[in-house]
Amino acid sequence: MATQTAGHEPNPLLIYNALNGFQRSTALKAAIELEVFTLIGAGVTSAADLARRAETSEKGMRILCDFMAIEGFLTKQNGIYALTADSAVFLDQKSPAYLGSIAEFLLHPTHIANYLDMTAAVRKGGVVHGQGNMDPEAPVWVEFAKSMAPLSAMGAAAMAQIVNVAGQPLKVLDIAAGPGLYGIEIAKLNPKAEIYALDWRNVLELSAEHARQAGVEKRYHTIPGSAFDVDLGSGYDLILLPNFLHHFDHATNVKLLKRVRAALQPSGRLVTVEFVPNDDRISPPAAAAFSLMMLGSTESGDAYTLKELDRMFRDAGFGSSDAQPLGPQTLIITKY
Amino acid sequence: MATQTAGHEPNPLLIYNALNGFQRSTALKAAIELEVFTLIGAGVTSAADLARRAETSEKGMRILCDFMAIEGFLTKQNGIYALTADSAVFLDQKSPAYLGSIAEFLLHPTHIANYLDMTAAVRKGGVVHGQGNMDPEAPVWVEFAKSMAPLSAMGAAAMAQIVNVAGQPLKVLDIAAGPGLYGIEIAKLNPKAEIYALDWRNVLELSAEHARQAGVEKRYHTIPGSAFDVDLGSGYDLILLPNFLHHFDHATNVKLLKRVRAALQPSGRLVTVEFVPNDDRISPPAAAAFSLMMLGSTESGDAYTLKELDRMFRDAGFGSSDAQPLGPQTLIITKY
Repeated sequence: MATQTAGHEPNPLLIYNALNGFQRSTALKAAIELEVFTLIGAGVTSAADLARRAETSEKGMRILCDFMAIEGFLTKQNGIYALTADSAVFLDQKSPAYLGSIAEFLLHPTHIANYLDMTAAVRKGGVVHGQGNMDPEAPVWVEFAKSMAPLSAMGAAAMAQIVNVAGQPLKVLDIAAGPGLYGIEIAKLNPKAEIYALDWRNVLELSAEHARQAGVEKRYHTIPGSAFDVDLGSGYDLILLPNFLHHFDHATNVKLLKRVRAALQPSGRLVTVEFVPNDDRISPPAAAAFSLMMLGSTESGDAYTLKELDRMFRDAGFGSSDAQPLGPQTLIITKY
Repeated sequence: MATQTAGHEPNPLLIYNALNGFQRSTALKAAIELEVFTLIGAGVTSAADLARRAETSEKGMRILCDFMAIEGFLTKQNGIYALTADSAVFLDQKSPAYLGSIAEFLLHPTHIANYLDMTAAVRKGGVVHGQGNMDPEAPVWVEFAKSMAPLSAMGAAAMAQIVNVAGQPLKVLDIAAGPGLYGIEIAKLNPKAEIYALDWRNVLELSAEHARQAGVEKRYHTIPGSAFDVDLGSGYDLILLPNFLHHFDHATNVKLLKRVRAALQPSGRLVTVEFVPNDDRISPPAAAAFSLMMLGSTESGDAYTLKELDRMFRDAGFGSSDAQPLGPQTLIITKY
């Protein structure tokens, strides 16, 4: 049954490395927490100096920085560490694109716990303990919204450029707004846009704060509650549904999408952002691997293919969809 | 400070993937536990059939196998999974080189716990809780000896070929014998070799069992206890010290090595097997990354360079050393 890969002798290292992958996760989190990248960016470049500034043992800092170099997050020459292009842009707190905070959510003990017994999750086909991250008002969503904001910021601005209609009034519903950036970017771009942000009450405090920081708070309205129960309002030109459908199964999503469609103008559009694997479900890697993220942390979520999403939209009464890449994700615009 | 890598636009995916690395670890462990590779090797190749045989949900099995394909441990074509060269050799239980059991140790809850707070380990310069894996008779070492045996088997046979002296009586001390394979391979190769295996009493039960299985039990003797305290005996032609020095600091190792040298014949040789990084400490990757493994699980261990090891040997009175690769590790033969 074996497929021989050219130029690759059987070697247990790939297996050994994968099994040790959790050390890669927690070591990178430690380097972020200890502000190693920010310190190196500021010219503190030897293990001894970094240890002094970060108040760690010199040995621990040397081993951590060497590991970061092995893993491609630092370079090392003659004992002097330097940032890589990625770590300079994304892991130095002085960089506007800093996203080190995502480590807080991705390695939150609550989140890690969902993946420690994957055997049980595979047997069951979903999260093993309780509803996982899907409990109402789960505090993890405030953490999520705070720490993952930099990642959604990358896609949100590009999405706003694509879906905005310049000069036109737009009534926008942002479902599961989280940090709120998708709606806020539209409000920043279009002074006639009114944003209605829906999420758990505790999460909306954060998105409202982000709206204030962006100076769009007068056109920013909040709808606390569950997208499945609460009155969504009506007459929307755009309904944003970023990173939401992957938490649920087809039937649940169709139920939601029917409610969503009822709130949309016939001339309106539904805007979905998702990790969308190809039909083979193993490419592109980051989108396809997102299935496992959902298996571990939701009861019935998944990373859906375009065909599966289109079937959901159609089953809820929607028209045709157009898809385009949005970073590692996919932006889907669907007609009423 | 940034080093631009040619052809590589700043991309947060490398960071995102590393932070999710723990999912890679636990998913591979799940696939091993559910005997996915063995089933595929036996011709069970669709997610539905695999789920039936492994008694899991079909969805969970599909997501797990897709993830294994994304990570390079399976291939997938038209919904049919197949083994890669590596998984056929190392992860199919029917293969003589099967080493899936290493997942039990590498992802043992006790072991994982050592790496969850790497920030604290870096601050301290070693294991955060207690002595980590270094507690006397820690049950983890029996797990270790059982589950890691296939990995040491790979190096042990090659080492035996190199250090054996055909036709000559050899009195061999195997320090921290673990599964016992280093000594046993010499005994299998040389009918005049007498092996003295030293380890914790609970671990020696396993190495003695392996000696019985190899039919060398009459020439296999055990010395229960700590290599630092127990009477080592004397007049050895070979003293094996595989994967031991990395648990301790220079001073502790020199103390041990002096005891070891006193037990050796002047014509004898010390045989060390270690993960040995180059002087840059970031290459080769597997050997260099072993430092982090030791930072998390020992009070003062490390992956030592050849220069550092040579200094230990010299400080203990030993003569010159010769080093050669032994898989991803290094075999070092040192004169009295």
